[in-house]
Amino acid sequence: MTGSTGDNVIFVGKKTPMAYVLACITQFNDGKKEVVLRARGKSISRAVDVAEILRNKFFTDVKVKEVKIGTEELTNQQGEKVNVSTIEIVLER
Amino acid sequence: MTGSTGDNVIFVGKKTPMAYVLACITQFNDGKKEVVLRARGKSISRAVDVAEILRNKFFTDVKVKEVKIGTEELTNQQGEKVNVSTIEIVLER
Repeated sequence: MTGSTGDNVIFVGKKTPMAYVLACITQFNDGKKEVVLRARGKSISRAVDVAEILRNKFFTDVKVKEVKIGTEELTNQQGEKVNVSTIEIVLER
Repeated sequence: MTGSTGDNVIFVGKKTPMAYVLACITQFNDGKKEVVLRARGKSISRAVDVAEILRNKFFTDVKVKEVKIGTEELTNQQGEKVNVSTIEIVLER
């Protein structure tokens, strides 16, 4: 994962994909050239859905500039360290 | 998605991630320089897990050469066309 934590980063969690698609649309309409989708664990597939819905249904001029995968170490509720996969999708308009 | 359908392509479905990690290990041990993980829908996050487990626990010299995302149109059991997201992770040793 890169260190990008700017206001063009959208963390994809458990909401419906359209919630994040709308967040992307808002960012691009604000004039951002790049929007970064980040997700981990089971939300990774949702992040891909968000990118694809945005590109196919809304902004066909948006391109996937880069997709990075990685691993983060988290501590769960039992205090154990667990690895969780991550994705970062860089969208460019 | 590329048109690669060779015997170095592993389709990631609903089995445990280790099943696919072992499939990757077998391919690389057979001398393959590249192994491609493909998944769609909710299995996308599992494909990322497979790549990360392989690289972190087994073959630390394996690199992620490319990650591509896309959309496929499927026909569901009700005969309706539905879009499903896809991922293709190209691993290189």
